[in-house]
Amino acid sequence: MKGNFVDTQDFSKEEILRMKNLGIKIKKYIKSGKYLDVLHHKTLGMVFEQKSTRTRVSFETAMTQLGGHAQYLAPGQIQLGAHESLYDTAKVLGRLTDILMARVIEHKSIVTLAEHAGVPVINGMSDYNHPTQELGDLITIYEHKPADKKFEDLKIVFFGDATQVCASLAMLTTHLGGHFVQYGPKGFQLNEHFQEICKKNCEKSGGTFLITEDEDEALKDADFIYTDVWYGLYESELPEEERMKIFYPKYQVDMAKIKKASPTVKFMHCLPATRGEEVTDEVMDSEYSIVFDEAENRLTAMRALLVYFMGKEEETLKIIENR
Amino acid sequence: MKGNFVDTQDFSKEEILRMKNLGIKIKKYIKSGKYLDVLHHKTLGMVFEQKSTRTRVSFETAMTQLGGHAQYLAPGQIQLGAHESLYDTAKVLGRLTDILMARVIEHKSIVTLAEHAGVPVINGMSDYNHPTQELGDLITIYEHKPADKKFEDLKIVFFGDATQVCASLAMLTTHLGGHFVQYGPKGFQLNEHFQEICKKNCEKSGGTFLITEDEDEALKDADFIYTDVWYGLYESELPEEERMKIFYPKYQVDMAKIKKASPTVKFMHCLPATRGEEVTDEVMDSEYSIVFDEAENRLTAMRALLVYFMGKEEETLKIIENR
Amino acid sequence: MKGNFVDTQDFSKEEILRMKNLGIKIKKYIKSGKYLDVLHHKTLGMVFEQKSTRTRVSFETAMTQLGGHAQYLAPGQIQLGAHESLYDTAKVLGRLTDILMARVIEHKSIVTLAEHAGVPVINGMSDYNHPTQELGDLITIYEHKPADKKFEDLKIVFFGDATQVCASLAMLTTHLGGHFVQYGPKGFQLNEHFQEICKKNCEKSGGTFLITEDEDEALKDADFIYTDVWYGLYESELPEEERMKIFYPKYQVDMAKIKKASPTVKFMHCLPATRGEEVTDEVMDSEYSIVFDEAENRLTAMRALLVYFMGKEEETLKIIENR
Repeated sequence: MKGNFVDTQDFSKEEILRMKNLGIKIKKYIKSGKYLDVLHHKTLGMVFEQKSTRTRVSFETAMTQLGGHAQYLAPGQIQLGAHESLYDTAKVLGRLTDILMARVIEHKSIVTLAEHAGVPVINGMSDYNHPTQELGDLITIYEHKPADKKFEDLKIVFFGDATQVCASLAMLTTHLGGHFVQYGPKGFQLNEHFQEICKKNCEKSGGTFLITEDEDEALKDADFIYTDVWYGLYESELPEEERMKIFYPKYQVDMAKIKKASPTVKFMHCLPATRGEEVTDEVMDSEYSIVFDEAENRLTAMRALLVYFMGKEEETLKIIENR
Repeated sequence: MKGNFVDTQDFSKEEILRMKNLGIKIKKYIKSGKYLDVLHHKTLGMVFEQKSTRTRVSFETAMTQLGGHAQYLAPGQIQLGAHESLYDTAKVLGRLTDILMARVIEHKSIVTLAEHAGVPVINGMSDYNHPTQELGDLITIYEHKPADKKFEDLKIVFFGDATQVCASLAMLTTHLGGHFVQYGPKGFQLNEHFQEICKKNCEKSGGTFLITEDEDEALKDADFIYTDVWYGLYESELPEEERMKIFYPKYQVDMAKIKKASPTVKFMHCLPATRGEEVTDEVMDSEYSIVFDEAENRLTAMRALLVYFMGKEEETLKIIENR
Repeated sequence: MKGNFVDTQDFSKEEILRMKNLGIKIKKYIKSGKYLDVLHHKTLGMVFEQKSTRTRVSFETAMTQLGGHAQYLAPGQIQLGAHESLYDTAKVLGRLTDILMARVIEHKSIVTLAEHAGVPVINGMSDYNHPTQELGDLITIYEHKPADKKFEDLKIVFFGDATQVCASLAMLTTHLGGHFVQYGPKGFQLNEHFQEICKKNCEKSGGTFLITEDEDEALKDADFIYTDVWYGLYESELPEEERMKIFYPKYQVDMAKIKKASPTVKFMHCLPATRGEEVTDEVMDSEYSIVFDEAENRLTAMRALLVYFMGKEEETLKIIENR
């Protein structure tokens, strides 16, 4: 699956860091008022089986900034595997576009799309993982980590439910040699499949992996505290009352918990946030919060991925570095 | 709110006329077969809480003509203030786009968006006003008014229900020193809030403002007759039978009424029109009607607003005038 | 209706072949890594009254490749002839875009749009015909026909229900002097209106036209076998059980039937296909199948039509041939 971005586990640490560096370089270049046209006349087909704001807007803006165009195929417009076989849809879309992204209900849909489209395919979130979020978060972490710490020194703590974003952050952190903690209640912890992947990652990378219900153990020296909503955003939603009983107040990120972490701790959230549930207004709006920088780096990640998987990394770096 | 286009009342007469002049110059330039790329690689985020044809299509065409791209976020795709706080949505959209427009259900939503987005925000109609329509109408009025009359000499008569378009036309006309009349039945007349604004405008500008149920008083020497549909297009719609009882035939624009106005009178409508209700086919299709020129000037207005609020007025005028 | 592409019957054989040749030339040019900007800053308005994947994606990609932009007006966004008269919608859209396409429920809608828009209008399928599919299919047939045969020598056999695609293929084939057969059951055969057109076409072109229920007669020496789904995709759908009773297995394209045709026979399908109904997996995935080349040529056709009806044929050929 190398020519596609379905899972960061398909790539080496070096490749992931290359994508990150590419993203940061393009970001600086565009912030300086310059633009690239490396994807001029190119079409990104965006297939959404579920609603999305950040993923869709950041992909579409990225294509415009790179000189190309993104087509938005909204939920309901293309039903993967409904009217026609997913194989046929993949073949057809691959003939009519230059690169594809999809937000899918079932992970196997993105895998099938990637296998048969004949053009690069990017996973815009499935029920399994959220790798474009991972790359954006990696960039945000690099931008906001203490200057004297390497990624391998960082303790990154996820609060609450084992969502796709939690699983993705766990895989990424352990893959790159960092220290990952999920602080969440039994029944809402990363499953054995993900635990297995993370343990193998740690053996290779020197990272560590922990799931705990102990607040002090989780928060001690934490460099980043990350959380996500307490309900499967698009799936079997828990009623509010029920989720509050499970998670509140123990797993809510509030100022008291922030104060127990490293003094330089930063607060992250993939958004949208349900203020008053998984995080307080006070934390969201504090100087610890880097959630909007994180949102902006969705765009940073998309530009890097589009350039990288369209085979334009060299050309882009040449333009950026020569000027 | 100066860097945003939420309400024409936030701008001086001179500023509004500058926007108008900019629109007319760009229109001539593009009609001559030339194009501008002053918004190349730029993204306009378009948030629609309600359906729209003219507003959406004209914004999107304007961005293409200026070298940029408009993203269409359809009703239901982003629910302002639903899943996440409107503050968070504003912050995120501002990080991922260069300029925003929104058609909102409640006026306070566009105000909040403008306050927090960090990029320019344009009001694409709220339940309070419709300022992009105002600017397009101003351009249409300048193009079609008698050559020997100044704007300050014009009598502009709105027929029927006090819609947002009626309120907007009243504020604009009185702000610029013209003579505004609403000819409509009690219960459907501009409320005290708008009357207050218009009176203050007149004190400053020398314009006049009148609400009347007297047909002869309304029509005498009218230079422009303007109407809108007889039902809140997206709100509490009156059933057809009920609205006909209230408005028909007294407030229908028909040829008999046109004949009572100035011989050079022009008929305007923001469209869509319900032919046979607020206006007859005969008037719509007559030589008095300038409704399609008016529709085209939605595009004229959007180009001007995008260039103006993206800070490209000087650069654009330089390009247009040097060639 | 010459400046619009509503029906291939409005054009001479020479004009249709010119469009085909233009499509093939642009395709080769773009496949060689070059791009055209002949529609830079131009807007295609795409009005869809019904869902579409191939038509929408191929038009939108075509505009991007030609330097312009396509606006997607989804089903429900514009209801032709609902809120306002179709005449008014045509006039307004024509003022705000450079060219229009529409997929319409009723053929008369596309005719009205073409009459009044004041810009070129392309029929993206109606309940009557599907001319952009025709042009793409013509290109596919030229690319895959035996090298020693002229179009006028080809036997093209449509299997199954007399859909719009069947009617379109019949008109096109007989218009250009080829030999058309519909192999389909009574009650699902092309009606008298189409038979009349095809007969007249044959008188002029030297082609032939046949409707038959005899498998051997249909398949003998067939150069192309074409089929479509067995249910009106968007209309009065037959329940699956009912349609299987009517068409299955007699009108299913399977390997046994393929073997009865010319040894160089090719299998075509406009897609989406219901594998296991009108065609077997074995045929879809065989070396006889050219369905994905056919899908790709939707894009080939759209580029040709956009260039042709925007009056850019000469300019485009000059660019392509000078380099």
